[in-house]
Amino acid sequence: MKELCITNGTILTMDEAGAVIQGGTLLIQGSRITYCGPAQAGEMAAGPERRVLDAHGGLIMPGLINGHTHVSMTLMRGLADDLPLDVWLNQHIFPAETKLTSEAVYWGAMLACLEMIRSGTTSFCDMYLFADQVAQAADDTGLRAVVGEVLYDFDSPSYGKIDNGLAITRELIDKLAPHSRLDAAVMPHALYTCSRSLMSKAGAISAETGAALDIHLAENQDETAQVQKMWGARPLAVLEELGLVNERLWINHGVDLNQQEIERLAAAGARLAHCPESNMKLANGVAPLPELLAAGVKVGLGTDGCASNNDQDLFGEMDSCAKLAKASRLDPTVAPAEAVVRLCTSLGAAAFGRPGELGVLKPGALADVIVVDTNQPHLTPMYNPLSHLVYAARGSDVLHTVCHGEVLMAEGKVESMDSEEVMARAKEQASALTGCRVL
Amino acid sequence: MKELCITNGTILTMDEAGAVIQGGTLLIQGSRITYCGPAQAGEMAAGPERRVLDAHGGLIMPGLINGHTHVSMTLMRGLADDLPLDVWLNQHIFPAETKLTSEAVYWGAMLACLEMIRSGTTSFCDMYLFADQVAQAADDTGLRAVVGEVLYDFDSPSYGKIDNGLAITRELIDKLAPHSRLDAAVMPHALYTCSRSLMSKAGAISAETGAALDIHLAENQDETAQVQKMWGARPLAVLEELGLVNERLWINHGVDLNQQEIERLAAAGARLAHCPESNMKLANGVAPLPELLAAGVKVGLGTDGCASNNDQDLFGEMDSCAKLAKASRLDPTVAPAEAVVRLCTSLGAAAFGRPGELGVLKPGALADVIVVDTNQPHLTPMYNPLSHLVYAARGSDVLHTVCHGEVLMAEGKVESMDSEEVMARAKEQASALTGCRVL
Repeated sequence: MKELCITNGTILTMDEAGAVIQGGTLLIQGSRITYCGPAQAGEMAAGPERRVLDAHGGLIMPGLINGHTHVSMTLMRGLADDLPLDVWLNQHIFPAETKLTSEAVYWGAMLACLEMIRSGTTSFCDMYLFADQVAQAADDTGLRAVVGEVLYDFDSPSYGKIDNGLAITRELIDKLAPHSRLDAAVMPHALYTCSRSLMSKAGAISAETGAALDIHLAENQDETAQVQKMWGARPLAVLEELGLVNERLWINHGVDLNQQEIERLAAAGARLAHCPESNMKLANGVAPLPELLAAGVKVGLGTDGCASNNDQDLFGEMDSCAKLAKASRLDPTVAPAEAVVRLCTSLGAAAFGRPGELGVLKPGALADVIVVDTNQPHLTPMYNPLSHLVYAARGSDVLHTVCHGEVLMAEGKVESMDSEEVMARAKEQASALTGCRVL
Repeated sequence: MKELCITNGTILTMDEAGAVIQGGTLLIQGSRITYCGPAQAGEMAAGPERRVLDAHGGLIMPGLINGHTHVSMTLMRGLADDLPLDVWLNQHIFPAETKLTSEAVYWGAMLACLEMIRSGTTSFCDMYLFADQVAQAADDTGLRAVVGEVLYDFDSPSYGKIDNGLAITRELIDKLAPHSRLDAAVMPHALYTCSRSLMSKAGAISAETGAALDIHLAENQDETAQVQKMWGARPLAVLEELGLVNERLWINHGVDLNQQEIERLAAAGARLAHCPESNMKLANGVAPLPELLAAGVKVGLGTDGCASNNDQDLFGEMDSCAKLAKASRLDPTVAPAEAVVRLCTSLGAAAFGRPGELGVLKPGALADVIVVDTNQPHLTPMYNPLSHLVYAARGSDVLHTVCHGEVLMAEGKVESMDSEEVMARAKEQASALTGCRVL
């Protein structure tokens, strides 16, 4: 069986005890970790079935998990910023999206996969149109993903009428079931774009298949007001009435949640993707992260799409997450570095539906691993690796990226795709989609 | 005279009209820009007195200006995070600072200069102990700086009694007066650490020499309360009573300012360094950026020191600045990308005391120029360069850095110092200073 050895670095296991192994080595056979501990003699020897990655004294840690994004929106990166939400959506994003094609979605997703591999993300959860193309891009580039076709009651540029959307969702779940890195989920867009009938049917598919039900929820106070007007209750109460608040529920944003709702989410074992940079840029408010963590909700970190961030870099997201929490509470002790790193690793894995298998380095875990090059001016000196990951490191500091035991990037060079071709094709698609000149 | 040509890129002049020149070329003779316009035939030819930097289709823009930092605090990067302010200061930062030596300050500053050159900063304003060593580091590495010895009423590890501190300040101002890249300023630490006598003497030196008077002011509401108790007035009113609110006044942070105070700052022509990431991380509050800009205050952007940020990257700072303003106002239109880029360029130059000479690319301006490599996945596609600079670019995207006509970094390789040696010496100093093991 193919073997991979990552050695000569400090291993941040992100296990429950937070074990750190200096001068550590990781051995991988196939898609799983088989050894995680101090270096042993002879391990640097490569062979026909054995590849060795030198961590150059850097940090060996779990690949990062992006809990919520729309990867193909890389095509709209910086298309429209600094605008009122309705102008941004109705005059820029929606008009572009009506022209989406499966090819555009594929190349936009490929560009995002390239960006994620380069910045240390190995798993992502994606909601978008033509979701099969997002799955294809993840498959082609070696990343791990949960994907879903976005469902709403108006006609979709992808599937047309909603019944087709539900059928496509069901097919995608079945199609990806045997795939070792890909899963599909049921993804109604939001309560203000989905009818009771849609929500019920979506819930039924989730219940039958066991697939997650992923939805934008409580993104801001305006949404709450709108949902209350349409449905007669606050967003989470609507989901409860529909019988959807359980371990399969995966809500994105969760900004406007009160303490009672947080406790109900925790009790149900539901998952939540916290998206601080998107929430800041779109001025949606600040999610109650300290309370969510205290209550024991499974919280992951999400970049959201590139139209509202504008990148897929989870290092920047961790920094913003920690700083926003402190700024909004006027308390420098909330969202400490370790807790924030866990949002993208061990706890993020629980939100992703793979607790203990992802987001942690230990024998038996899936081999999703990155190496961060710490021999750099902005990471010197290093007293505390977790502090550096949150407050000083950038996506560009990632040296090696491994997913499911496969090397996707080594020594900063992406191996699983042709970077120049991906950028060129994405530019073509972006220009066709938006009608704008792309520099 | 030595000539430098930067060509094959899109020039963001950051002039008043915001002129952008595609396919542009910049010519530099000595320390000044002599041409800024469309490419001309033959300019790619290098010669004995003529060096050519290829922008590779990227962005050619003014070098960034850091309006407030303590560069040598790179040695304490990540030493202590996520702590209550008093614990952080009294148990970690102050104890380390009592052991500061001139050598530690020098190597800490060298490390910061290396980080700044790599991330596109060409000018910085620094307040610290052993300020002559910060000046030396800026001199040795080719950066532009305003430096000042931090003054307070307790004994300083650098100068001992305050009278020595005032004498050192005066000497440094005189010593650096003829230097083309360096200036000194008078830098009382803050109103809660400086007596009336100190403030008066500091003000007198500023008035006599014309040097700026740089002070931490209105950093949070606790400071206001403390100053009111000690001085019987709010911070700005104290400075007014001391006769210090004029064009030479340069305040750092300015978080707790009311509308009246903002208007008085604007009317006086005073300058302000906005430090959003430090304010967030230390949970000091949010400065009223929209009102400061509307009133016409000369606002620059500052990273603050690495103990409270934890990097010197102004790209990250711009991103945080724009997003924090939107989040705190629940309004996505405040702090738009162009305004934020101007904080580090044209407007930042006014805060730095060099309006029109720095922060803008035009014939006659000082040749502080950087090139951002946009041929990268996370900067693809590009509809709007200013949006990318704020919301997607990172310090690591800087390809060339030029200050005062000298090439400090070309093709990502720093030319004005030995990077490995600087990191090694800084690590030694960090370990000696903190008594902590440095990884």
